[in-house]
Amino acid sequence: MAQHEAAQQLNDRRREKDLLGEAWVPHKAYYGIQTQRAQENFDLSGIKLSLFPQLIKALALVKMACAKTNNQLELLDDTKTDAIMAAGKALLAGQYHDQFIIDMIQGGAGTSTNMNANEVMANIGLESMGHQRGEYAHLHPNNDVNMSQSTNDAYPTAVRLSILLKHSDLVKALASLRDSFAAKGEEFADIIKMGRTQLQDAVPMTLGQEFQSFASTLGEDIKLIDGLSELLKEVNLGGTAIGTGINTDPEYARLAVGHLSQLSGFEFKRATDLVEASSDMGAFVLFSGMLKRLAVKLSKIANDLRMLSMGPRCGLNEINLPAQQPGSSIMPGKINPVIPEAVNQVAYQVIGNDIAITMAAEAGQLQLNAMEPLIAYNVLESIRMLTQAMDMFRNRCVRGITANRDRCQELVDMSIGVITAVVPYIGYENSTRIAKNALETGRGVLELIREEALMSEEELNEVLKPANMIRPQRRRLAANAAKIA
Amino acid sequence: MAQHEAAQQLNDRRREKDLLGEAWVPHKAYYGIQTQRAQENFDLSGIKLSLFPQLIKALALVKMACAKTNNQLELLDDTKTDAIMAAGKALLAGQYHDQFIIDMIQGGAGTSTNMNANEVMANIGLESMGHQRGEYAHLHPNNDVNMSQSTNDAYPTAVRLSILLKHSDLVKALASLRDSFAAKGEEFADIIKMGRTQLQDAVPMTLGQEFQSFASTLGEDIKLIDGLSELLKEVNLGGTAIGTGINTDPEYARLAVGHLSQLSGFEFKRATDLVEASSDMGAFVLFSGMLKRLAVKLSKIANDLRMLSMGPRCGLNEINLPAQQPGSSIMPGKINPVIPEAVNQVAYQVIGNDIAITMAAEAGQLQLNAMEPLIAYNVLESIRMLTQAMDMFRNRCVRGITANRDRCQELVDMSIGVITAVVPYIGYENSTRIAKNALETGRGVLELIREEALMSEEELNEVLKPANMIRPQRRRLAANAAKIA
Amino acid sequence: MAQHEAAQQLNDRRREKDLLGEAWVPHKAYYGIQTQRAQENFDLSGIKLSLFPQLIKALALVKMACAKTNNQLELLDDTKTDAIMAAGKALLAGQYHDQFIIDMIQGGAGTSTNMNANEVMANIGLESMGHQRGEYAHLHPNNDVNMSQSTNDAYPTAVRLSILLKHSDLVKALASLRDSFAAKGEEFADIIKMGRTQLQDAVPMTLGQEFQSFASTLGEDIKLIDGLSELLKEVNLGGTAIGTGINTDPEYARLAVGHLSQLSGFEFKRATDLVEASSDMGAFVLFSGMLKRLAVKLSKIANDLRMLSMGPRCGLNEINLPAQQPGSSIMPGKINPVIPEAVNQVAYQVIGNDIAITMAAEAGQLQLNAMEPLIAYNVLESIRMLTQAMDMFRNRCVRGITANRDRCQELVDMSIGVITAVVPYIGYENSTRIAKNALETGRGVLELIREEALMSEEELNEVLKPANMIRPQRRRLAANAAKIA
Amino acid sequence: MAQHEAAQQLNDRRREKDLLGEAWVPHKAYYGIQTQRAQENFDLSGIKLSLFPQLIKALALVKMACAKTNNQLELLDDTKTDAIMAAGKALLAGQYHDQFIIDMIQGGAGTSTNMNANEVMANIGLESMGHQRGEYAHLHPNNDVNMSQSTNDAYPTAVRLSILLKHSDLVKALASLRDSFAAKGEEFADIIKMGRTQLQDAVPMTLGQEFQSFASTLGEDIKLIDGLSELLKEVNLGGTAIGTGINTDPEYARLAVGHLSQLSGFEFKRATDLVEASSDMGAFVLFSGMLKRLAVKLSKIANDLRMLSMGPRCGLNEINLPAQQPGSSIMPGKINPVIPEAVNQVAYQVIGNDIAITMAAEAGQLQLNAMEPLIAYNVLESIRMLTQAMDMFRNRCVRGITANRDRCQELVDMSIGVITAVVPYIGYENSTRIAKNALETGRGVLELIREEALMSEEELNEVLKPANMIRPQRRRLAANAAKIA
Repeated sequence: MAQHEAAQQLNDRRREKDLLGEAWVPHKAYYGIQTQRAQENFDLSGIKLSLFPQLIKALALVKMACAKTNNQLELLDDTKTDAIMAAGKALLAGQYHDQFIIDMIQGGAGTSTNMNANEVMANIGLESMGHQRGEYAHLHPNNDVNMSQSTNDAYPTAVRLSILLKHSDLVKALASLRDSFAAKGEEFADIIKMGRTQLQDAVPMTLGQEFQSFASTLGEDIKLIDGLSELLKEVNLGGTAIGTGINTDPEYARLAVGHLSQLSGFEFKRATDLVEASSDMGAFVLFSGMLKRLAVKLSKIANDLRMLSMGPRCGLNEINLPAQQPGSSIMPGKINPVIPEAVNQVAYQVIGNDIAITMAAEAGQLQLNAMEPLIAYNVLESIRMLTQAMDMFRNRCVRGITANRDRCQELVDMSIGVITAVVPYIGYENSTRIAKNALETGRGVLELIREEALMSEEELNEVLKPANMIRPQRRRLAANAAKIA
Repeated sequence: MAQHEAAQQLNDRRREKDLLGEAWVPHKAYYGIQTQRAQENFDLSGIKLSLFPQLIKALALVKMACAKTNNQLELLDDTKTDAIMAAGKALLAGQYHDQFIIDMIQGGAGTSTNMNANEVMANIGLESMGHQRGEYAHLHPNNDVNMSQSTNDAYPTAVRLSILLKHSDLVKALASLRDSFAAKGEEFADIIKMGRTQLQDAVPMTLGQEFQSFASTLGEDIKLIDGLSELLKEVNLGGTAIGTGINTDPEYARLAVGHLSQLSGFEFKRATDLVEASSDMGAFVLFSGMLKRLAVKLSKIANDLRMLSMGPRCGLNEINLPAQQPGSSIMPGKINPVIPEAVNQVAYQVIGNDIAITMAAEAGQLQLNAMEPLIAYNVLESIRMLTQAMDMFRNRCVRGITANRDRCQELVDMSIGVITAVVPYIGYENSTRIAKNALETGRGVLELIREEALMSEEELNEVLKPANMIRPQRRRLAANAAKIA
Repeated sequence: MAQHEAAQQLNDRRREKDLLGEAWVPHKAYYGIQTQRAQENFDLSGIKLSLFPQLIKALALVKMACAKTNNQLELLDDTKTDAIMAAGKALLAGQYHDQFIIDMIQGGAGTSTNMNANEVMANIGLESMGHQRGEYAHLHPNNDVNMSQSTNDAYPTAVRLSILLKHSDLVKALASLRDSFAAKGEEFADIIKMGRTQLQDAVPMTLGQEFQSFASTLGEDIKLIDGLSELLKEVNLGGTAIGTGINTDPEYARLAVGHLSQLSGFEFKRATDLVEASSDMGAFVLFSGMLKRLAVKLSKIANDLRMLSMGPRCGLNEINLPAQQPGSSIMPGKINPVIPEAVNQVAYQVIGNDIAITMAAEAGQLQLNAMEPLIAYNVLESIRMLTQAMDMFRNRCVRGITANRDRCQELVDMSIGVITAVVPYIGYENSTRIAKNALETGRGVLELIREEALMSEEELNEVLKPANMIRPQRRRLAANAAKIA
Repeated sequence: MAQHEAAQQLNDRRREKDLLGEAWVPHKAYYGIQTQRAQENFDLSGIKLSLFPQLIKALALVKMACAKTNNQLELLDDTKTDAIMAAGKALLAGQYHDQFIIDMIQGGAGTSTNMNANEVMANIGLESMGHQRGEYAHLHPNNDVNMSQSTNDAYPTAVRLSILLKHSDLVKALASLRDSFAAKGEEFADIIKMGRTQLQDAVPMTLGQEFQSFASTLGEDIKLIDGLSELLKEVNLGGTAIGTGINTDPEYARLAVGHLSQLSGFEFKRATDLVEASSDMGAFVLFSGMLKRLAVKLSKIANDLRMLSMGPRCGLNEINLPAQQPGSSIMPGKINPVIPEAVNQVAYQVIGNDIAITMAAEAGQLQLNAMEPLIAYNVLESIRMLTQAMDMFRNRCVRGITANRDRCQELVDMSIGVITAVVPYIGYENSTRIAKNALETGRGVLELIREEALMSEEELNEVLKPANMIRPQRRRLAANAAKIA
């Protein structure tokens, strides 16, 4: 290697040190030695921190809130504070995210992620102060950026905030999907069809009622998800290493949480028991449980849509899903329900992720849960996939669904299930006998009732009018009750 | 067989019929032909309905509420209504529960369970009217006891109510366990010990703080479980077969829910979308998710107690769990932490049950979820096991825990982790160097700080006073900050 | 209390002692003080050991094998050995099982279960020797019945054996179910129907092929389950407390495993690394994984049968499931697929149990897995439920399935999917265009091909002959390939 | 836009068409219209096909095998066959992988992935023939590249092959990790330490035995994983759409499977029941169950290492894990077991993935499983993460573990557990009494035995010699047995 090249190479990197010794870091890097060690240690999922911008922004907000607090308590001077604030703003603006190079799955309870943030912010801050990257004497990743913090309070707080930052997208996608189903509910309000229980013909309903029920069930989850996200606003910031608040001022926790609320726009509150809050993952477990509930509902709806659109000629064929892509590499003309199928798959993954979260939460020991990175990864991933899946579901499927009105009517007309409507008039046992007869002979239910003259024609017409079968009706002909016995 | 015996045998049974034909039923049985068929069909888990008295009582209350409503709407006469009320009261009093003979795991969306209740109540009612069992012309399982109902609304409503009936036991056990931990928190308030993160020595805390954190984490769940149990108060009673309310009076649903609230003491409300409510299992999924959260917390606490009591001579040995039984068939004198181990196992089962519930919920199709019996079984079983496990935990373990004060102090005295307390005074890098030195040489941290004269003796004493390390402290000697750089 | 009664009461019980002190035990009990303590400690699942006779028999066989070995090594005299053998035979004959009173979910790695066996066998043995129950000087639960054993080797060995004892029922039920499906496969061999992929009409097949595929998929599992059960034949007997074999003769392990093989009829082999074998639960994890695979297959089949029998008038209605019970308390004449629904639910429970097993296995620590009772419970329960469910499935559903031949044919006749068969002749793009046209106009595929004269009538007839579409065919008219481009 | 630019832009793209109509595709793209539609449809996990090179190579091998077969059957001419072979070789060489742009989670049973391969291979092939991309008249994605195939046989076959291609990395990582543990087992062979059961002091063993047990337990899985990977060699190639082999020559399936074996080097065999094989996911479910078993073992080992290295001063501290990165942002000198923690997290993710796989497998319907993409993704991801995690575990943790010999000895010396070794000589009850006494008084076990003169000094020395406690011993002094009674 020529002398020039060697010199060049030396200029391309800088020497940093930590508890374990010294190492070269690329000079262009804003991250430092600890980030680099973590990158080398963990190459597991292939998913880097940089893919979760909300987490980076949340870390920035936490560091900014702490810097403000430290400044207020006269522990950090104005120059350093300004530098940290400047670094935070750069991250909030989406800059430098490529410097977050560590795998989402990592040992160490988030220390690596926290140090990645400390190092990147220190170096951005140093530049803003007119110093070189790596001149930590002027702004130190641990002493300054991490001042009054531990990974054990800063990281869990940031993870909570990152979920809250992503939360609105989720709720928006959910509300939009609900609205799409509700619109279809109105559009299909006058289409009579057979309801089915246990996959067997039951009693009539409208297709509008069916689609409205999808809207209703999703709508219920909006309030609940919002409610459970409140749990994430209780943070352990100020607890430092194990929740005892060692190395913090008695005023610190209160002030830091206040600044975080102001900077982020979310009303955080300090956990009453910071020791408990340091190791507790309960908020994530329950929030993931709620995501699982949503996944279960989405999967059920996707299953129903696939079932109702079975066909085109050999299935229920009550509705048509919009075609999104050719369905087969061998069967021409085949269109498949690919969008609902993808919704199902996302739901299964979310349910699998919930188990990973559960096991990680259960593995917490003594004063900390070392497995929190896996929890953060899975909650954020589940939220992201559900959000994307609901947008896809709405845009590429629900909005374009059309109904086969005639087919729906045809199935009602040939059904036996309408017998249910006459039970209050002719009794369960008479009805059972007639239904059985119809099934065995292939004859119509009405025909058989008429034959036995169990009800007058007028009564029958009134009771079996479709519009009268899809909602409660005042019993008109109490006299008939006598026939039951 | 002698003639007499044959006659006797004929007297011992009665002939009943249903949609499928006729069959003999033991005459002493209060259940009828449909219950008997279901018993023959399903022999799966070996767990019978009769093991869940709350479910039987809940079914009784639903039937009573419906009878009152039907009477009010002049659909059911006073005699029959009185008979149904009498039958319900008998079930509420714990009578006839042995007549609920069907397996908890059963096909049919609960129809078998519902019919078991209908048949038993009809026969109890018949007797109260002075009739023989089986004389259904006077009080019919379907036409009368099940009037205006479908399995599809009566059963889900009863399942919700059954959970609510069991819920208070769960909450009481949880609150008592929390109180036990809180009492230990006070008892151990002045015992200094080392906190540990990632199983490595961290910084000091009190044993009281540690036990109080168990109390805190359980305490948080009381309010949440109560809150989520509210979801169970939204019922689809009146929706009948598919939520359209076919065969009911327009006033029926409102009245029936009102009667149910009055009879049960819980404030039920009618689901706004009864079609949605007929197939939706979301309330169970989320409630089970909450039970899972509690299970995770209990398991984490059990793990911690087992870890802290490792020993007696070769482990942490900071606390002693009360001996409940000899620990080994081969190792004399061995006492094992059998109670926390059983808590762990219950937790794992609850987590497994949650997956069964999740899959059953996802399997709902179109207007109904046929798998609800599995959901009911698992939610009720999880509640029961958690309740029993928490009572066991409290009575047979937590209350009797004692602390090894000297051992705890000894570990603090020999630890390196106290170095953390001086970071604000001598900086992260100095501290790191000293800690490393201490670890390598086996010397004490204090000794090394003194040797380097990094802090005055007075400062050092003040900062390292145990009482000062277990909570935030105003930084006393800002001048030292200069030394950091 | 009168003097007489007090005396009577004293006679009704006996005093026993253990490491923890003394306690009264009912004199009629064959179990002793340690069993009684465990019963009091654990009241969790409500499921007692006595419900799993295979586990009791397996414990007996292990104790018998060890007694023989100890006798052979001259550690146990003939009298005591005979007494233990007699006790074991009684348990094998199904006697005294009611003395196994402890909850299946229990702390202590199975110590309680092992001691229950030790105590019951000691007392049965004592009686056979002419002594009173409780006179342990003559035959001691620990020193004699448990000689050369620890719970930590005796219990895991017994659990493995108990699964093997139950295994043949499982395999028999599985093979019978497969045979039932295969018989239906033959019965339906000439019924042409539409195959469906992604719930959309695909290409023709026979109903026989469909049922044969159920037989095939189940058949594959017989060999695999048998193969994996071999893993259970590797035991740690002789490892005692932690696998080092402390307190055993160097010849002991080999001899004991030999006796166990001889007594049980299974060819056990000693684990090569007994330390590893003491804590490893891998065999259970994988065996449960296999049970889960079977559950998944059964559930898929149950889903298919429910789908194919949708109707009777508004669904696919290609097959009829035999009616087992009335389907509805409100809808007369409704018959539901209750048997497959119950199969689904058992499958979901088995999958949930697998998670409980997984977590329990992961929770093993250092030289033992304390959670093995939960593992034993869930594996045995999963086997039992699957066995019962498969017998139910076969007897109450599969055997009685009938086909709706005309309906099947009708659906094929009206389908578009047959277009696939002409792709090799007219190309993918021509075929796609025709399929699309057919779908949009409602016209038939054949009609459109004829209209365009893309194939001769003779060719078309040959290619579209149903019998030619359900298996590979030599391409007859290579000339047509030219038309593709 | 200037005319020139417009012309340029037109040149930058090409027009393609499919069942749904026409669309522009970037001209530089080797993928075509169907791939592009799928990319637009599915944006869910963010993980693209290109991240799984084994899957791309497997698709190439399948297409190559089919082309050879079609050529042999005179269905595909030599020119086209050569072009397809050339395209396949390019993919096998790692070229064009960036053209696989679709999300791993996708609807449609893999049709999109299959079409991505068909289109890319057609365009590579076209270039090799001297044509332009998009000139499909010369080499068509469906008619030629996909000839005699359906997604429903080509894709499942490719997924199986992709796992086999990755399998050797997994086994290699596993074998290396086992070897590392075995080497430590030898290195630590003479270090005596206390064994622990249920976290309580048990009896002595060597640290070498403990590490060897980790090697043994991992070693067992090598053979099993290899064995279960055999299941993946049974393929449904030739079954086409639903397993009936429609559109294939009777010789096709046999020949195609033969060519695939030859090209890939794996001995594939044709499934006996191709209809069954088209929808069955059992091989994946069981293989994932096996991966879960491995994950459970790795997690248990990671837990043990973290426990044994607790400290440095306040825990067991029997071993030291090599430091990989500073452990804390606040506690100087703290080193955490980050590598085992990451192993735990990977294990939890694999267990979560197994649930996703299970649910996807259960969701198969009728003649196909539409959820196979999720299964493929999770199996491949679990294998990848396990492989990486085991390499990390070995390189960054296991190889550098050192033992604290003195600490191990010290704990043995102060333990009570050695009492177990004298049970055969003085009986269980005497031993229990002495152990209890030792525990209560803090005195030593030996001291107390001597005091009571229960054994001669010589006997005692012999029995309690550490080397004699870590393996079976012939009982020396049978006379002592008398003392037991």
